[in-house]
Amino acid sequence: MKDIDELLHLFRPNPTEEDSIRKTVDSIFQKIISYCKENDLEAEPVLVGSVAKGTNLKDGDIDVFVRFDRKYTRAKLEKWGLSIGHYVIRNGKEKYAEHPYVTGFIDERKVDIVPCYRMEQGEKKLSSVDRTPLHTEYVKSHLNHTGKDEVRKLKLFMKYIGVYGADARVSGFSGYICELLIINMGSFHRTLETFAAMRGKLLIGEPEYTESFDSPAIIIDPTDKTRNAAAAISLENLSRMKFCSRLYLNGKLPEYSKSYEKKRKDATDRGTNLRIFRIKKPAITDDILYPQVLRFKNAIWEIMERSDLRPVSWEICVQDHIEVIIESENREIPALKIHRGPPVDEPSSLDFYNKWMNMEISRGPYILGDRIYVDLIRQQMPISEVVREGLKSVNIGKNIDDQKEAMEIFDPYESGQGSCALDLFLSKFIFQGHPPEKTSRNTRSS
Amino acid sequence: MKDIDELLHLFRPNPTEEDSIRKTVDSIFQKIISYCKENDLEAEPVLVGSVAKGTNLKDGDIDVFVRFDRKYTRAKLEKWGLSIGHYVIRNGKEKYAEHPYVTGFIDERKVDIVPCYRMEQGEKKLSSVDRTPLHTEYVKSHLNHTGKDEVRKLKLFMKYIGVYGADARVSGFSGYICELLIINMGSFHRTLETFAAMRGKLLIGEPEYTESFDSPAIIIDPTDKTRNAAAAISLENLSRMKFCSRLYLNGKLPEYSKSYEKKRKDATDRGTNLRIFRIKKPAITDDILYPQVLRFKNAIWEIMERSDLRPVSWEICVQDHIEVIIESENREIPALKIHRGPPVDEPSSLDFYNKWMNMEISRGPYILGDRIYVDLIRQQMPISEVVREGLKSVNIGKNIDDQKEAMEIFDPYESGQGSCALDLFLSKFIFQGHPPEKTSRNTRSS
Repeated sequence: MKDIDELLHLFRPNPTEEDSIRKTVDSIFQKIISYCKENDLEAEPVLVGSVAKGTNLKDGDIDVFVRFDRKYTRAKLEKWGLSIGHYVIRNGKEKYAEHPYVTGFIDERKVDIVPCYRMEQGEKKLSSVDRTPLHTEYVKSHLNHTGKDEVRKLKLFMKYIGVYGADARVSGFSGYICELLIINMGSFHRTLETFAAMRGKLLIGEPEYTESFDSPAIIIDPTDKTRNAAAAISLENLSRMKFCSRLYLNGKLPEYSKSYEKKRKDATDRGTNLRIFRIKKPAITDDILYPQVLRFKNAIWEIMERSDLRPVSWEICVQDHIEVIIESENREIPALKIHRGPPVDEPSSLDFYNKWMNMEISRGPYILGDRIYVDLIRQQMPISEVVREGLKSVNIGKNIDDQKEAMEIFDPYESGQGSCALDLFLSKFIFQGHPPEKTSRNTRSS
Repeated sequence: MKDIDELLHLFRPNPTEEDSIRKTVDSIFQKIISYCKENDLEAEPVLVGSVAKGTNLKDGDIDVFVRFDRKYTRAKLEKWGLSIGHYVIRNGKEKYAEHPYVTGFIDERKVDIVPCYRMEQGEKKLSSVDRTPLHTEYVKSHLNHTGKDEVRKLKLFMKYIGVYGADARVSGFSGYICELLIINMGSFHRTLETFAAMRGKLLIGEPEYTESFDSPAIIIDPTDKTRNAAAAISLENLSRMKFCSRLYLNGKLPEYSKSYEKKRKDATDRGTNLRIFRIKKPAITDDILYPQVLRFKNAIWEIMERSDLRPVSWEICVQDHIEVIIESENREIPALKIHRGPPVDEPSSLDFYNKWMNMEISRGPYILGDRIYVDLIRQQMPISEVVREGLKSVNIGKNIDDQKEAMEIFDPYESGQGSCALDLFLSKFIFQGHPPEKTSRNTRSS
């Protein structure tokens, strides 16, 4: 990859941008303060997120929370929160993560206005985002000027190798985790050295707290010792981070384009069967959609496995459509099924014998080891039919279940259709990153 | 199956046959006694086996041991033993089980003359067959007239379902085991009831002795409490015996012809691949040959498994040739190989990456879970080539290794050749018996 300092130079906001951000934030604060005064609300604006902490990359979002007194009901908080949002952002849109907020653009910069409750350290949180201002304060008081750029480097590196983002789509490292890592390790380089040498779990925090978690990555949240701030990180992304850190420190992390080129060579017949399962993308947020997409993939995979289609590999792509690609060894249910019956010691073995003795079967009943078996000849059936039939009796989640009927199933090579799942599948590489271009928002809760 | 009493009537020697056997035995004894006298040998003839115990079936062999004093060396015993054998049996042949002896025909009846050492109960045996006379004495003194016919019924039943014989070919129940079962259970019917109700291991003997064995069937030899007389019985044959006992007692054990007919129906395409591996049968005794044949089958199976040919079922047939039939899901090595590398935590994962990064591969290296993988495209190769190539580096045993070069490999359907392995394969059934026709010798040691 490119030199990390060169990348930092490209993606660090310049003084002009910093100045413009400051002005936008000031005007947002003014509006919120005056709105609260007029409406007699005990609430105040708080700048949170990477802009507040000084760890933002070029073109980053501005996140402003409106912190309400704890006396307000949840319904009141949501109602006033949305009103303030619309007052601040002309043409703003309402969004619902775990919790409603307003998002839109001010001076061509993305801005979120999010209501939350006031919460002191140790207090019970009343809504899912109340902890965010505490994170902001913690990072601001623990990170010096150099540290901020070290966080930026770490974020750029993680974006490069595709592990940045705690949302369900990525299941990787959040911005807050990057900040905690730099606070703990001191620098970008030391952080990568730590990952390169790491074996097993990522563990940060006193054992008495880390012991109670079982994730691949455990980082005790310094603002709430009972929380694992790294719970979102998948085993795969932890592994990628370790491995790519080692490659980077050895000067061997390849250019992104190399991995991309590879794909071209790979678009050859693998002697297997590829099928794309494509449905319309329901209009819901990623964090609700992604777990459903994974269940959708798992349901198809299990149906194929049960029918001995022998699935071996998969990929998911979500754009306008949801696409699941599955590679399998067999293109139809194999004719022969060796059907294992109970051990002969079980009384049910006699039922098994009686049942199959009078059926048209291929062979048996016969005994192998301590069990009874028959060989059955099944009707051969192609992948598409097996999956369509099998999905009928599976509940994946309302949003996807509605789309099952209209699902398209096709062989990407036969159909000649472009497919983002196929592209992802063929370009599968040691890292699945994108060269950093623009920063983009991750979930609210980090 | 036929009524067991009807079978007994058909296969029990009639008085004329018994008389003729007695005459033959007498003349054998006379010859041995006079030979020993002339040559000043301290040795005597002993009638052993089923004839001695009165549990013989029609056309059974006569087994006569020549019991030598323990002062003779092994070499002397073998030399004199063979001389006596040839003196008694005109045109006799020398055979070598664990121990040389002479076999041949007298009055159209098969006779074996086997040398052994005198051994009292508790004494150390000097050759593998010394124990046999003790077995004969034990059975004679514990089995009454009715008991003898019960043993005959049990033998006929076991022959019918294909579990009779302790030799390596069958791995089933010896004649001595049948006798011990009747002595313990009292009757044929009670024995079948015991098997029908049995769960887990067959256990006969005091726990302090049975505890030291780990076979599916354990019957402490009453003439030597440290020996498991049932060691030869395979799990499969024990299971067959349990299951067929249950069917028999319920009046549901089918006629042999039924299972035979079944085969006809089954000679259809199972949608899989069948291959016969055929070599010449070396001229060695079954007990030496069979373990080699099993190793031969296992070697082919493992080669096929390693190459992802997915073997699923097999059968062995030994007649003039040795035939192994193996059924597999794939007819050639699949093109795609998902090659699993080490966990990323292992330093060797970096070597794996370096190795494959510069090779023409289909996809990767990539990370799944905590490991690194690559997808390889292999050369497709048919079963026959894979096995022929793989066997070159496997030592099975001198007798079979000599035949590997000339091995024939063919698809029984394509070639249209008859094959006893295919017949066995297609007729695989709850029991793999043969209707009792003629009794035939089993191993010396039982």
